[in-house]
Amino acid sequence: MYSFRNDYSEGAHPDILAELVRTNLEQTVGYGCDEYCERAKDAIRREINNENAAVYFISGGTQTNLIAISSFLRPHEAVIATSSGHINVHETGAIEATGHKVLTAQVENGKLTPELIKPILDFHCDEHMVKPRLVYISNSSEVGTVYNRGELSALSRFCKENGLMLYMDGARIGSALCSKQNDLTMEEIAKLTDAFYIGGTKNGLMMGEALVLVNDCLKADFLFFVKQRGALLAKGRLLGLQFLTLFTDGLFYKIASHENRMAELLKAGLTELGVPFLTDSPTNQQFPIFADDIAEKIKLSYDYEIQKKLPDGRTCIRLVTSWATPEWAVNEFLRDVGEMLRISGE
Amino acid sequence: MYSFRNDYSEGAHPDILAELVRTNLEQTVGYGCDEYCERAKDAIRREINNENAAVYFISGGTQTNLIAISSFLRPHEAVIATSSGHINVHETGAIEATGHKVLTAQVENGKLTPELIKPILDFHCDEHMVKPRLVYISNSSEVGTVYNRGELSALSRFCKENGLMLYMDGARIGSALCSKQNDLTMEEIAKLTDAFYIGGTKNGLMMGEALVLVNDCLKADFLFFVKQRGALLAKGRLLGLQFLTLFTDGLFYKIASHENRMAELLKAGLTELGVPFLTDSPTNQQFPIFADDIAEKIKLSYDYEIQKKLPDGRTCIRLVTSWATPEWAVNEFLRDVGEMLRISGE
Amino acid sequence: MYSFRNDYSEGAHPDILAELVRTNLEQTVGYGCDEYCERAKDAIRREINNENAAVYFISGGTQTNLIAISSFLRPHEAVIATSSGHINVHETGAIEATGHKVLTAQVENGKLTPELIKPILDFHCDEHMVKPRLVYISNSSEVGTVYNRGELSALSRFCKENGLMLYMDGARIGSALCSKQNDLTMEEIAKLTDAFYIGGTKNGLMMGEALVLVNDCLKADFLFFVKQRGALLAKGRLLGLQFLTLFTDGLFYKIASHENRMAELLKAGLTELGVPFLTDSPTNQQFPIFADDIAEKIKLSYDYEIQKKLPDGRTCIRLVTSWATPEWAVNEFLRDVGEMLRISGE
Amino acid sequence: MYSFRNDYSEGAHPDILAELVRTNLEQTVGYGCDEYCERAKDAIRREINNENAAVYFISGGTQTNLIAISSFLRPHEAVIATSSGHINVHETGAIEATGHKVLTAQVENGKLTPELIKPILDFHCDEHMVKPRLVYISNSSEVGTVYNRGELSALSRFCKENGLMLYMDGARIGSALCSKQNDLTMEEIAKLTDAFYIGGTKNGLMMGEALVLVNDCLKADFLFFVKQRGALLAKGRLLGLQFLTLFTDGLFYKIASHENRMAELLKAGLTELGVPFLTDSPTNQQFPIFADDIAEKIKLSYDYEIQKKLPDGRTCIRLVTSWATPEWAVNEFLRDVGEMLRISGE
Repeated sequence: MYSFRNDYSEGAHPDILAELVRTNLEQTVGYGCDEYCERAKDAIRREINNENAAVYFISGGTQTNLIAISSFLRPHEAVIATSSGHINVHETGAIEATGHKVLTAQVENGKLTPELIKPILDFHCDEHMVKPRLVYISNSSEVGTVYNRGELSALSRFCKENGLMLYMDGARIGSALCSKQNDLTMEEIAKLTDAFYIGGTKNGLMMGEALVLVNDCLKADFLFFVKQRGALLAKGRLLGLQFLTLFTDGLFYKIASHENRMAELLKAGLTELGVPFLTDSPTNQQFPIFADDIAEKIKLSYDYEIQKKLPDGRTCIRLVTSWATPEWAVNEFLRDVGEMLRISGE
Repeated sequence: MYSFRNDYSEGAHPDILAELVRTNLEQTVGYGCDEYCERAKDAIRREINNENAAVYFISGGTQTNLIAISSFLRPHEAVIATSSGHINVHETGAIEATGHKVLTAQVENGKLTPELIKPILDFHCDEHMVKPRLVYISNSSEVGTVYNRGELSALSRFCKENGLMLYMDGARIGSALCSKQNDLTMEEIAKLTDAFYIGGTKNGLMMGEALVLVNDCLKADFLFFVKQRGALLAKGRLLGLQFLTLFTDGLFYKIASHENRMAELLKAGLTELGVPFLTDSPTNQQFPIFADDIAEKIKLSYDYEIQKKLPDGRTCIRLVTSWATPEWAVNEFLRDVGEMLRISGE
Repeated sequence: MYSFRNDYSEGAHPDILAELVRTNLEQTVGYGCDEYCERAKDAIRREINNENAAVYFISGGTQTNLIAISSFLRPHEAVIATSSGHINVHETGAIEATGHKVLTAQVENGKLTPELIKPILDFHCDEHMVKPRLVYISNSSEVGTVYNRGELSALSRFCKENGLMLYMDGARIGSALCSKQNDLTMEEIAKLTDAFYIGGTKNGLMMGEALVLVNDCLKADFLFFVKQRGALLAKGRLLGLQFLTLFTDGLFYKIASHENRMAELLKAGLTELGVPFLTDSPTNQQFPIFADDIAEKIKLSYDYEIQKKLPDGRTCIRLVTSWATPEWAVNEFLRDVGEMLRISGE
Repeated sequence: MYSFRNDYSEGAHPDILAELVRTNLEQTVGYGCDEYCERAKDAIRREINNENAAVYFISGGTQTNLIAISSFLRPHEAVIATSSGHINVHETGAIEATGHKVLTAQVENGKLTPELIKPILDFHCDEHMVKPRLVYISNSSEVGTVYNRGELSALSRFCKENGLMLYMDGARIGSALCSKQNDLTMEEIAKLTDAFYIGGTKNGLMMGEALVLVNDCLKADFLFFVKQRGALLAKGRLLGLQFLTLFTDGLFYKIASHENRMAELLKAGLTELGVPFLTDSPTNQQFPIFADDIAEKIKLSYDYEIQKKLPDGRTCIRLVTSWATPEWAVNEFLRDVGEMLRISGE
């Protein structure tokens, strides 16, 4: 059964794997102090054209978020996210477990705006309430949408004007940057945020995220936090090597572009079949809506996650493409779903 | 320059790597719910002859310790360790960061005994002090020593009689079990402890530790804790697959035995050269003591860590062997050090 | 200027003060182990007809809530509250600071129901999300409303059926129990909840809340938590003595009844003047709504807190009565406000 | 039975109590924003001749310590104390519960020195260990000793040179300042530390400590921390009023001097009887050593705490004097103990 369940169903992109094999017997010092990590950090600094950025490699996204956020904030400070934000819903209270409240704004398209943040700031006016200090956004968002330059600039400006820091969860930043609706570069993102992370796990790596600290105030003693939360990998070079490969010859963007191309095929094909979508996603997560029985029938042949049950007897499902998604799988899926819809429609 | 700095200088054992390559394109569900993880858990349960044990795969040792300990304890409860215990010294306060005090007993050989724990229990007598509840031991210890059956049984019995749980950090449990001073099996360790972990990172894996929960009281909702601390790897099958390979055809013990054999060569060779040791270690960490100038001279050709500077102008260094340590490197080291000592002795 | 700002504007009820003066020179042991504390605990146990209840005296409400909730929950468990719940808004993230997420239901009248909790339970279905485990309610609520027997019974039953514990913040439980809409006794509340606290600060004491643990599972080692959070008062007898006095000769209910009677006068008087209210509160907090200019004019003569600015140019203010509120102050207030409304209405 | 158990056996000094009674019916705003608190803060600022110091009133010592230390430190930073330090032993892990490790130096006389701290700094050299950042001292110490000007200046200078902050727990600072071995003023203490607290509970108040922040870096948003830890008393004026009274007409020093005078009588009398002491304490805690049977016999007539059981069949007990200790009680105690010793000596 083919799976569109997520972008971490398979192992690593072959180029990544080849490098791991090639260097396996080399001896390096541990904990990310090796040359591969250094070179990978340099590659990322070049990518964002900022030689002062601090870069840390961490195994997973929740870990990266909790280390970043808990080290950015003082005990009474809170982070603002959308109510569907990954840190608010799908990290088992990891942020709260480090002592910080997640304040939320309700929004359907997964994107924060100054207008959504303003009332939260206005409300939190004294020491009986937490102090909003950090804005958390995901790009692409949890529903596949992306921030364009205008949106991110407005958010960045608003944050600066209001004493807020801006942090971007880039678990799927590759897909965002390579999407048709994107007009941002990674360099611009680095300029508009205080920190962000470049997702590797969902972009062809075995595992690994690269946390980039742009704001100088966030850099001091950061490795202590990585270690304290248990995220300093002994064989740290594994992460460095993978990111070095990812940022050599544009592999990062090649992988993301492939993901997007497969997702666009899915989107175009389903649209042609008259299937509506939860959001207009230009990235590698698509959220088509089917009648419940069709959704169940698809489940017999293809693996996916249910995004939500709609009150009207329909189901929104999530389809995700990865570096490994082959075009034939997409075509077969579209053909099979087309068939199911035809039969059902008769 | 050859490095005896640690047992995580190289990548993964070739058999492990081969399996990662072989299965790279397979699609599996994420977060460790895949078949490889299930089979690896079963293999470990067979290894300890306990089909009810709960097994979790986690990327690193500090992470495993902090997840285990913070989930085992209620807020006011404390863990007892040696003052040189990894959780007390080398985890950047990871345990305290989860809210728990580490109580310590001073001991040179790295091993806890009922006699060392007793005064701590006696002292902590009321609600103005933390409540000792868990005993943390490392096997092999931070100075290379191992617990034998008599010692572990006595400790286990003492813990049960005093309402304490017993947890073993097995970062180097392979080396301990394969050492000449060992008379325990992993099954016995599982019977004598409430929980322990099987170190993979230092025993041939890319990364990964297998936390084994034996005591039923510790099992409920455990996956929540793994996720909350950011340790639930998206491509969890990477860990499962590696452990499955490790516990197929005795690879785990083969690797550990190789490590120990190389360490024994080091130990025997240095002893023959008249070099004293900090401890009588039968495992893959050796702690020879050299005059400062010899230690510095060695450093020019071989990488190692300084264990401690002795007050008498000597340096205790740590030499560690791994799955990848070749016999020729050991022989060369011995030959070179012998030469240095001869020159110095003239 | 007379203040209706809150029910802690004055010191202690004269009977309380008299006892503090009378016993001032007595020597007692510290930390609440004295006879006054014991007798006060017994008095409260008699009040709820449960000799096994554990009772702890703590200086303030936020402290009581954070000690209770953080000791009731394991690290991955969350507490459910209304979005206006005190722990969610007005405790500076105290609950999150102990590591726990507050899940919220939106509701105008300040009261939780099974219908509001059910979707939260349904949504939190796996280990990627926190586990709802405790329901937090306030009686009277933050907007002055009270739970009647039917409501509390339904909530209690729902909690039991769904593995949830029920905890009542009784900062103003006296006013709730003495209100005209109440049909519950404290004994019944103790039967329907797992734990609750009896507010003293807002019911005539200098300071002090009595936390009552009914559910046996919550009792073990509780004094450790009180101490660990810094809440074990050295001169603990101060709290015991005050509660003993409060539960002697019905002083607790006398004070609450006075508060309510003054609040009812306010409510009746304002209603007669045509003033609308945010909620139909039968307790000592009243939330009348005035045109902005009237609200500002009142502010010149009387102190109060703004509850919220309404979008239509009106202001909802909060008026609170206490043990010390004299009838003349209420009458003057009504007369003055009536005068302002008349002038404004011309 | 007369109690020398501690300095919080009785209520408040009569002058304090009188002020509480006198102002009981006044209405003030809550949470320490009232005029009494402001005036008390001013009085303390005058006392230390520093109009920029920030002052906060908190109910108890453990609470003060945990709020101060957890707000001063970032997550990876640790506090250094003596192994007998109150925060290390007698606060149920309150500091660790906020996430911070307590590093300890072993010392008999309860006082830290640069020599004791230096090895701790040297040892903590990288990100695998916590980062020492704060030095915690108690004056008077847990064994009654005091810091003189030379000692505190040396410590202060050492801290500044090594990037450490210095915090003094002044639970018994009154007794320290009024002791015969003291040559410091409160103003000097404020100059030599980054923060300290003035103990009220053990110096005649019902309850209350005044935390003084001298270092500007520690002041920002501090009230948030007080609230978040549950320490912002609703009727905050109670604390302000008490401290205002304490710092009017020198009451603070009068009380401490009385305590010390009674303690000196005890010390002189016991010394005359040939009783040895654990430490040479010039303050209101005395630690005489008796044969076990004498200690038990004393217990029949006088309440005290056992400080420690000596291995040689003797018991060190703690005798504490308070604002309320009458001279006759001291004389009777000395007479009775003298009698016991005589009988025993026959």
